[in-house]
Amino acid sequence: MKLRVGIIGAGPSGLAQLRAFKSAEMKGEAIPEIVCFEKQADWGGLWNYTWRTGVGKYGEPIHGSMYRYLWSNGPKECLEFADYTFDEHFGKPISSYPPRPVLFDYIQGRVNKCNVRDYIRFNTTARWVEYKEDTKQFSVVLEDLANNKTYTEEFDYLIVASGHFSTPNMPYFEGIEEFPGLVMHAHDFRGADIFRDKDVLLIGSSYSAEDIGVQSYKHGARSVTLSYRSNPIGMDWPEGMKEVPLLTHFEGEVAHFSDGTQERFDAVVMCTGYQHKFPYLPDELRLKTKNCLYPDKIYKGVFFNELPQLIYLGMQDQYYTFNMFDVQAWYARDVIQGKIQLPGKEERQKDINLWLNKAAANCSHDDEIDFQTEYVRELMNMTDYPTIDLDKVAVLFKQWLQDKEEDILRYRDKTYTSVMTGTPAAQHHTRWLDEMDDSFERYMQETPVPEPERELELDQVQAQ
Amino acid sequence: MKLRVGIIGAGPSGLAQLRAFKSAEMKGEAIPEIVCFEKQADWGGLWNYTWRTGVGKYGEPIHGSMYRYLWSNGPKECLEFADYTFDEHFGKPISSYPPRPVLFDYIQGRVNKCNVRDYIRFNTTARWVEYKEDTKQFSVVLEDLANNKTYTEEFDYLIVASGHFSTPNMPYFEGIEEFPGLVMHAHDFRGADIFRDKDVLLIGSSYSAEDIGVQSYKHGARSVTLSYRSNPIGMDWPEGMKEVPLLTHFEGEVAHFSDGTQERFDAVVMCTGYQHKFPYLPDELRLKTKNCLYPDKIYKGVFFNELPQLIYLGMQDQYYTFNMFDVQAWYARDVIQGKIQLPGKEERQKDINLWLNKAAANCSHDDEIDFQTEYVRELMNMTDYPTIDLDKVAVLFKQWLQDKEEDILRYRDKTYTSVMTGTPAAQHHTRWLDEMDDSFERYMQETPVPEPERELELDQVQAQ
Repeated sequence: MKLRVGIIGAGPSGLAQLRAFKSAEMKGEAIPEIVCFEKQADWGGLWNYTWRTGVGKYGEPIHGSMYRYLWSNGPKECLEFADYTFDEHFGKPISSYPPRPVLFDYIQGRVNKCNVRDYIRFNTTARWVEYKEDTKQFSVVLEDLANNKTYTEEFDYLIVASGHFSTPNMPYFEGIEEFPGLVMHAHDFRGADIFRDKDVLLIGSSYSAEDIGVQSYKHGARSVTLSYRSNPIGMDWPEGMKEVPLLTHFEGEVAHFSDGTQERFDAVVMCTGYQHKFPYLPDELRLKTKNCLYPDKIYKGVFFNELPQLIYLGMQDQYYTFNMFDVQAWYARDVIQGKIQLPGKEERQKDINLWLNKAAANCSHDDEIDFQTEYVRELMNMTDYPTIDLDKVAVLFKQWLQDKEEDILRYRDKTYTSVMTGTPAAQHHTRWLDEMDDSFERYMQETPVPEPERELELDQVQAQ
Repeated sequence: MKLRVGIIGAGPSGLAQLRAFKSAEMKGEAIPEIVCFEKQADWGGLWNYTWRTGVGKYGEPIHGSMYRYLWSNGPKECLEFADYTFDEHFGKPISSYPPRPVLFDYIQGRVNKCNVRDYIRFNTTARWVEYKEDTKQFSVVLEDLANNKTYTEEFDYLIVASGHFSTPNMPYFEGIEEFPGLVMHAHDFRGADIFRDKDVLLIGSSYSAEDIGVQSYKHGARSVTLSYRSNPIGMDWPEGMKEVPLLTHFEGEVAHFSDGTQERFDAVVMCTGYQHKFPYLPDELRLKTKNCLYPDKIYKGVFFNELPQLIYLGMQDQYYTFNMFDVQAWYARDVIQGKIQLPGKEERQKDINLWLNKAAANCSHDDEIDFQTEYVRELMNMTDYPTIDLDKVAVLFKQWLQDKEEDILRYRDKTYTSVMTGTPAAQHHTRWLDEMDDSFERYMQETPVPEPERELELDQVQAQ
């Protein structure tokens, strides 16, 4: 009997897993029977933009957290696939911070090349999983959403690739039930147009707050206020943007902050992060973790230690993204294929503890980058995934943090050089702050750069 | 062994079931072991207002579809509990169309009286149900959301009381993904303040469209446009409100309609109804129906014909509400207690077909009212639920439809007389159109009625 592998989710992690198996097959290896289940009607996970919020066409919680005008908030050179470069996909240099549709196109290019779409059952959600001790298999209840039908299939390995930036974490603040304006989580934000001429309060101090703040500024909000719990983001914000300490409560449309100040707002966006949520998994198989660089209980960040037939992809907080999912998927593949033997449970736990201890010692963002670089390197070296010069990628990450801090409104105009191909990124024809169109078509145009007055020099950073 | 009864949902239907058992117990009967599971942190179902939209604190789809300033859109005299009158609860006459908090208070009054809260496990969702042929029991996987833990319990009877006005039905319209304004389903609407001075498009022609339209008008929308698919609501709309035929597509912020007209909007609310959704039930136990007065496959609108240990409450489209859930719950109780024997499956199917045929013959709203009146009467007469003079209730319903049609902005100022107690409703101290505060406190005040110019006489309808 052929092994059966079930993959839950056809986002970047699930697609990485499909690609990993396909790549082995192309080298002549026999691969297991694979089925990938995707709740959405198309692949791409978060990158598959939806206008919907709340629940989708079939009443399932919406996966997507992206919005119109979302541009990459990190250099594309840091997430380049080692086995499918930007050069290969685009055939010409592009800028370092492409908009969502361009990165989505890149993700799709690789998987379109290798016919993995046939493995995916779209509009299909995993409803409930049981591990059967007698057969050593997972019994997975699936729901065909379009046909309102459930059915059950058995798998030897189950790969959880359903992401962890889809289930909002949304705290309560006193008086919010009486706040008359719009209240939403960043997950439901679909574009800053609705905040034109509005006073917007963003709660949070991570990527969502930073980017939705800057988006709102760019698209004409009257004022943008970011409220932080512990520490401000600390950027040199432009006129009209500011940071204030934590919101304590609302009185009508007025927000009160812990420093005693108060202000009236039209809208509140909770940029308060996401929860790891696996409603389809029973307690004993469920990964329970906050968002961190090394969740406990998964060996090499991948294998559920209690039951290593259960594999989690991409559950870490992320500097590295696409290529980290790749090295995880390649590693998982080789274990499933029997090319790599896992050590025993206690050995595995020791290794987990080692990494947990390392993670606990991280003090700065640079430490975190180095930590995740080491993690990716370890996995990369275990398989035939093409080698990436990760030290160079780490340098790029650190440069990116610096560039952002230098100018949060203009860091996306910077360019870097591909670690994989040595190709320097192109300067985009329009500065990010002036570019109101994020479409693929507009991005790929060879339009001459409009020349608005430039307040700062657009140095090309050659971070090598 | 005591029978075990599981109830999913502690809204009006689930609470009716608890009350039904409690009422038998108070009469000296032995009752089964009962556990009621409620996803929310409190009881009341839709009546338990939440400021949240999308998913809740623990990432489950939000149940609540109600909003600030929601007032009953039907006379309270039509939904009065036969065993707990408005007089008993409030101790004085109140108006016929109370705001949500006042009706919520009424619902709670009855169940507070009889200690049913102890039966309810809050923050607990049903995750997956299996019926075990060998034990003839339901095995129900439950999730304790606050503690992120799953566990399984067995039940002889399972009562599905999770409602069907919580999972939005939200069609796609071409170009909506590029519409720059706010797009939401009525389910996520939390108050019309956000539409002040805005041009709002509502899609739909049922209760949600009608009421959110009127709310938006009341709270200062610049214009309110309702787009209908088949037939307009056809009210005599005030200046600033109008109906147009079906939306065909969007171009940017401009909506195009099937009559060739077009208009720019700031926001779109899809008042496009709800889906019956039971993600925790397997295919073979799942009620699959659109919203209608008599769903197929449930005997007497309650017992799942394939397996009558499975009981559905409140799954009908509703003229009757609270008291219909009551007669269903009393009937279900008596079957579970063995006081009523169900006929065989084929007999049951015949009866279902009879009702389906009757339902198919309904032509007008008045027909529908008569149909549901007969349905409620049949169930009412089978148990010891106190008798309601349903013919009088039917008259009230028909009067209500007429009053709404006469003046959609002022029908809530009408008053009717209780069928149960003969008490005429009080005139509320403030006309609905002028009343911007829907709080319990404000409602119960003995404030003198302010006397704005009245454009129409507020006839007291004594519909007896």
